[in-house]
Amino acid sequence: MTEDLSQKVTAWRRDFHKHPELGFREFRTASKAAQVLEELGFTLHLGAKAMDPTVILDYPASLIAAAHDAAISNGGDPKLLPMMEGGLTAVIAELDTGRPGPTVAFRFDMDALPIQEECHGPHRPAAEGFASVTDGLMHACGHDGHAAIGLGLASQLAAHQDELKGRIRLIIQPAEEGAPGGAASIVARGWGDDIDYFIGCHLGLGVPTGKVVARAHLLATTKYRVTLRGRGAHVTYAPHDGRNALLAAATATLAMHSIPPHSHGWFSLNVGVLRAGDEQGVTPSHATMEVGVWSDTVEVHEYVKGRITDILEGVCASAGVELEIRHIGESPTSPQHEELGAIALEAASLVPGVVELEDEVQCRAADDAEVLLYRVTERGGKGIYLLIGSELVDGHHTPTFDFDESSLEMGTELLTNIALLISRRPWTE
Amino acid sequence: MTEDLSQKVTAWRRDFHKHPELGFREFRTASKAAQVLEELGFTLHLGAKAMDPTVILDYPASLIAAAHDAAISNGGDPKLLPMMEGGLTAVIAELDTGRPGPTVAFRFDMDALPIQEECHGPHRPAAEGFASVTDGLMHACGHDGHAAIGLGLASQLAAHQDELKGRIRLIIQPAEEGAPGGAASIVARGWGDDIDYFIGCHLGLGVPTGKVVARAHLLATTKYRVTLRGRGAHVTYAPHDGRNALLAAATATLAMHSIPPHSHGWFSLNVGVLRAGDEQGVTPSHATMEVGVWSDTVEVHEYVKGRITDILEGVCASAGVELEIRHIGESPTSPQHEELGAIALEAASLVPGVVELEDEVQCRAADDAEVLLYRVTERGGKGIYLLIGSELVDGHHTPTFDFDESSLEMGTELLTNIALLISRRPWTE
Amino acid sequence: MTEDLSQKVTAWRRDFHKHPELGFREFRTASKAAQVLEELGFTLHLGAKAMDPTVILDYPASLIAAAHDAAISNGGDPKLLPMMEGGLTAVIAELDTGRPGPTVAFRFDMDALPIQEECHGPHRPAAEGFASVTDGLMHACGHDGHAAIGLGLASQLAAHQDELKGRIRLIIQPAEEGAPGGAASIVARGWGDDIDYFIGCHLGLGVPTGKVVARAHLLATTKYRVTLRGRGAHVTYAPHDGRNALLAAATATLAMHSIPPHSHGWFSLNVGVLRAGDEQGVTPSHATMEVGVWSDTVEVHEYVKGRITDILEGVCASAGVELEIRHIGESPTSPQHEELGAIALEAASLVPGVVELEDEVQCRAADDAEVLLYRVTERGGKGIYLLIGSELVDGHHTPTFDFDESSLEMGTELLTNIALLISRRPWTE
Amino acid sequence: MTEDLSQKVTAWRRDFHKHPELGFREFRTASKAAQVLEELGFTLHLGAKAMDPTVILDYPASLIAAAHDAAISNGGDPKLLPMMEGGLTAVIAELDTGRPGPTVAFRFDMDALPIQEECHGPHRPAAEGFASVTDGLMHACGHDGHAAIGLGLASQLAAHQDELKGRIRLIIQPAEEGAPGGAASIVARGWGDDIDYFIGCHLGLGVPTGKVVARAHLLATTKYRVTLRGRGAHVTYAPHDGRNALLAAATATLAMHSIPPHSHGWFSLNVGVLRAGDEQGVTPSHATMEVGVWSDTVEVHEYVKGRITDILEGVCASAGVELEIRHIGESPTSPQHEELGAIALEAASLVPGVVELEDEVQCRAADDAEVLLYRVTERGGKGIYLLIGSELVDGHHTPTFDFDESSLEMGTELLTNIALLISRRPWTE
Repeated sequence: MTEDLSQKVTAWRRDFHKHPELGFREFRTASKAAQVLEELGFTLHLGAKAMDPTVILDYPASLIAAAHDAAISNGGDPKLLPMMEGGLTAVIAELDTGRPGPTVAFRFDMDALPIQEECHGPHRPAAEGFASVTDGLMHACGHDGHAAIGLGLASQLAAHQDELKGRIRLIIQPAEEGAPGGAASIVARGWGDDIDYFIGCHLGLGVPTGKVVARAHLLATTKYRVTLRGRGAHVTYAPHDGRNALLAAATATLAMHSIPPHSHGWFSLNVGVLRAGDEQGVTPSHATMEVGVWSDTVEVHEYVKGRITDILEGVCASAGVELEIRHIGESPTSPQHEELGAIALEAASLVPGVVELEDEVQCRAADDAEVLLYRVTERGGKGIYLLIGSELVDGHHTPTFDFDESSLEMGTELLTNIALLISRRPWTE
Repeated sequence: MTEDLSQKVTAWRRDFHKHPELGFREFRTASKAAQVLEELGFTLHLGAKAMDPTVILDYPASLIAAAHDAAISNGGDPKLLPMMEGGLTAVIAELDTGRPGPTVAFRFDMDALPIQEECHGPHRPAAEGFASVTDGLMHACGHDGHAAIGLGLASQLAAHQDELKGRIRLIIQPAEEGAPGGAASIVARGWGDDIDYFIGCHLGLGVPTGKVVARAHLLATTKYRVTLRGRGAHVTYAPHDGRNALLAAATATLAMHSIPPHSHGWFSLNVGVLRAGDEQGVTPSHATMEVGVWSDTVEVHEYVKGRITDILEGVCASAGVELEIRHIGESPTSPQHEELGAIALEAASLVPGVVELEDEVQCRAADDAEVLLYRVTERGGKGIYLLIGSELVDGHHTPTFDFDESSLEMGTELLTNIALLISRRPWTE
Repeated sequence: MTEDLSQKVTAWRRDFHKHPELGFREFRTASKAAQVLEELGFTLHLGAKAMDPTVILDYPASLIAAAHDAAISNGGDPKLLPMMEGGLTAVIAELDTGRPGPTVAFRFDMDALPIQEECHGPHRPAAEGFASVTDGLMHACGHDGHAAIGLGLASQLAAHQDELKGRIRLIIQPAEEGAPGGAASIVARGWGDDIDYFIGCHLGLGVPTGKVVARAHLLATTKYRVTLRGRGAHVTYAPHDGRNALLAAATATLAMHSIPPHSHGWFSLNVGVLRAGDEQGVTPSHATMEVGVWSDTVEVHEYVKGRITDILEGVCASAGVELEIRHIGESPTSPQHEELGAIALEAASLVPGVVELEDEVQCRAADDAEVLLYRVTERGGKGIYLLIGSELVDGHHTPTFDFDESSLEMGTELLTNIALLISRRPWTE
Repeated sequence: MTEDLSQKVTAWRRDFHKHPELGFREFRTASKAAQVLEELGFTLHLGAKAMDPTVILDYPASLIAAAHDAAISNGGDPKLLPMMEGGLTAVIAELDTGRPGPTVAFRFDMDALPIQEECHGPHRPAAEGFASVTDGLMHACGHDGHAAIGLGLASQLAAHQDELKGRIRLIIQPAEEGAPGGAASIVARGWGDDIDYFIGCHLGLGVPTGKVVARAHLLATTKYRVTLRGRGAHVTYAPHDGRNALLAAATATLAMHSIPPHSHGWFSLNVGVLRAGDEQGVTPSHATMEVGVWSDTVEVHEYVKGRITDILEGVCASAGVELEIRHIGESPTSPQHEELGAIALEAASLVPGVVELEDEVQCRAADDAEVLLYRVTERGGKGIYLLIGSELVDGHHTPTFDFDESSLEMGTELLTNIALLISRRPWTE
């Protein structure tokens, strides 16, 4: 990897970091990335070709339109942006070698978080002038780095095109942090159906610079939006007429947080949001809860989901309150392929600076990449979720998050090597 | 009323006080009272003639048998006791004048409480030697006085027999404090069906000596025994297999105590007892709750009962726990008759020492007498529930409860006057 | 009362109804009313003379400014409006007869509610063209009628000026519905200190047209804003690090709703609003509750307030969560004066159409007027809170609320008569 | 191992199985075992020499005396039983070879469970006539087998005495199931202070016949008895005066069951028992909870214990209820010694029938043996907790529990081999 490319990757990361965008609103980031990929000779699939818009839920059109406008005035590509209107920000970019061979897909994400970045003190993005220029938004998870590595990988693959066979697909997905995330809408368009090798990846997550984990098993996760509808009543004229949605939500919250542990695994459940009632003088007639559950096995996950449903139904019946449960996100856990893991470890061993390899770890995290990984596996493909070590200054999702940029080059090389190693293997459909 | 009778009434009260007996175990008290009534010329109806044994629930045969034995060795009437075996301690005593006239019934109770009487200090029963001789039991509500007034009334009526017409029925009921109480089993034998005038009464309840309330409206009450059956599971091997009856009971308890107030009245709900689980290492598979509710109107009472059912059913469903709800007691509120109230006030105005009259009050109490009152009213009879004022040393149901014994004579005179006034009224069936 | 005035009162009511304004934003209503009162010869006290601005809490300046602007373009008086800037919308209007005599104060309110008025079907305001023109706001409690009666009363008093003595004070207060309400800021300027007779009133509240209640005892009320601050934590990386403010709020809500009844009175407690947490993946670090309590006696009120504090402090300690409790409103209950009640009943008996009088009722409602009534009583004045009967189409605070407009004339006459009767009484300071 | 000894071991097991005894009441079992050990030449330490009686809590003297009497009439050794009075049933038996060498201790348990054994169907103890003859008690965990293996081991060691060196100590402890268990009272007498090699063991626990696990890491456990004292109040006269211990216990139970998971390990918390209140008509003035917590790391265990304390203190404060927390049992987790584990595996490999070895597993169970293991480790000794595979018919602690008796011989041989292998190793103090 050339010094020049290495600098480019860092520059891309810093540019993305400076201009964070929330999920399904990554207009500037996506159009910038698409521009680079197009210049490198990749074929682009954008907008409704990349994503099924009907799968995206609940994103207010006005906010999306505002973000779209902002992207235009903020350096987004005016030619590509129109295709992305309505939040269709996924970028699918393909390099077809023309030679028979497998389809190898790499997945990256690019969305930021609703976190106000630290702008004082030793926080490097602030000190070196690439901190977020958008109030209240920040790349605090490393997706800026992921997108940059994706462009670095594309550059490398374009340069090594004649050493490759089959087809390379880069998937830069929107809304990894979202519920629902963007991967489902990409799967709905069939982009996960014909993949032979699938590689998802993440920087950091507790893995130090110089270490690579080939297969990081993720937590299954399910996210619910729960709506309770009771009956308001004046609390002094007719308190007995009320059906108290707030009280039912409180009872259900306690009951859900009391689901006993499962002896076959670990889970964490969180009623992360509760909004109920309008005023002091009226029995709260409505309540909304946002509930998430994360589990390390499918058995445990199904157990918790079953208990959640029982609790909500029973408690709402007990309170005379109507219940609506909406799944707003689901990411499974799927097995990862040992053979592809071995290729990744071999690839990693060739990267300068990589000093430690680990085949498998159990991660206390979920990633929307699982939706693609699951689909690939279901269709007979081989998938892994890699961890690219990177020393962190502070934890993911904090205002002072930052990572060791030397991992950008290592990540780019690692993924390039994987593509090259796969291409060197014999191929029969 | 003779000085002699007045002393007798006090002596009866002190004898009963010294030998307290719990509900359906009032063998000594009942046989002593029956003896007196028989000697006065009343016709006795005892045992299964007085009560329907099938209506009595849940009283352990062994405890009842032990109490029966104790009564024998404790001065109970050996001729009458055999009839009362199995807890059939009600005493129905009738005086038939032979002259056409109404059936006038007076109801008294005689059971004590599981309270350890204070045996030191200024507590008069202790100081004057008539404190309970039975460990852990005490007349702490005044039923000893009620039974004594009943015998005083019987003495007076026997003496004034030729001023009476129709039929006088004294009902000395067991288990006023019980759930279920003893009145239901008496009603089940038809003793409430043909009453023209019904008078229940209570000493004290906040009314001072010298005051009489003609119609004390009582709270409706319903008592439940609730059983939850879940599934035990070893809490480290398989906590997920448990269905936690204790946790469901805790949730239901909180939800029941959170039933909103009713704007048309007042109620009090109490989960008075909760017993759940066997050991620390196993998910509690069972729970029992004793729940009582008291309300000042039928509308409010039905509202609370409906909410209790909804809550228990919903919460048990939410927890995968089976539910059994048993009614173990129910006493309604019924309207009291204005005309009979007026007679009572007139009767009271003739009693020396009575200085204050009140027609109606709302009482924060329930009495099993309501079961008879309700039945009488339903059959077209007229009923009231009187309060006979009596200064109290300490609250009802406390270890230092005692009342002003001068109210015994006033009560006896008051009830005698009521019977006489009714007999003086013209009568046509 | 002239036909002409009667029509004016109805017209005022309909004008106010059509232009509803929220509390502390009644710029148009207040300036219109002030205009009329000035024309009638009343001396006005407006803005910071009428109210202490430091007593008003929490009203966002931008919303108030917007309402001020809207009032200008909506017919508000351009001369008076500037004085009211910042939400100082109270109108104090005095008529000084110059003759020695008592200070007689009448209190009216004028604020609307955040309710969307029904605009179809038989709803009369819609059918007759005076429904709210402001989306989301509505006079759904009758304060439009109160303000109109106030102007009718002022007109009558101006016309009968020579039959009066002493000083008449009309207090048209902002934000009766608010927490805190507007009365406190008026009391803070001393307007409640020198009142000899104080009359508050309300239309409807279950009293039919033609009936007047002289003394409607109100509920005491206290309103709290409770803020809980815990600690967010990633729910899969470090759930044990979180301090869950949502869960603490749920526990506290259940505990507060479980406060046992008080045997000396009735109360209703409501956690009317709960907002907690930001996202599914993070332990909720903050929660806000809006809690109200209404009681029919001071003893009961103090009991509930004490229990609320204990519960919040204990539960927050149990959860490791910081607690802030802010009183955002308090209205006491105060005794009402029997003599003034008798004057009101006499006054009512002189009003054509009034067919039923009642001296006292206990109301299941609170009114910010109590703040003034309490102050008046405290300073030795005499006060009452009248109910002016008015048949309602639908309940207070509903989108189809409307009242019988014939009660406007009756209300005006009633209050006029009260003022006249007071003036006819001999007066010595 | 001789056929004869093998049959004896099975016979011992069946004899113990037929006569189950609860913890600190194992009079018959202990005296029988002591008899055998004495005959084999072991030196016995019984009664207060074996156990510190002050460490035993809460065991009612009358129940213990009754069990003592039963043991006498049931075949217990009349010479040894007197020494065990008061529940001092531990048996410490030593074989001193007289040759310099290490002290090697083997720990066995012998208490049964309060479970009614299945007496019909295919349950082998019933079918073959060795089911429990004591109503409501049963060996449902395998401790009958452990005690039998202990005697088998003693027989083997006595036979191979000249191949041993140092000192062999057999510890047959009471009340493994108890809270507190019997190990603490043995440690308090110093029997854990001078052990060089310590071996605890258990049959089954999911390990099949023919498999041995050298080091089964146990869960740390802490057991609490929590007492809440509130204030009773008549629920209709003065519900506001009550301080509801039942409601506080319900709230605390829900809060404790809602303690969030810890990301560094697993735990299970159980409020296994709740007893509160006396009757429906009185605010429950007292509540007792038995709470247990089990964790797989010390860090997690300390976290849960801290949260329990915070919750109980805060909730009780919120309810105006007094709190008493008593530790009634605590068993730590301690590291197990790799070298001794290796010896055990070697020993197992020599046992006919043993076909599978595993060095370490994490167990979802706790054992009172940990108290000894912890002490031994603390004093510089080496300890392990072995699992001896045994196919189970039904789960531990169920009425149809039974194990594969062929594991008795394997267990005996395994432990004998361990003792022999240790003796073959060079020894320097």
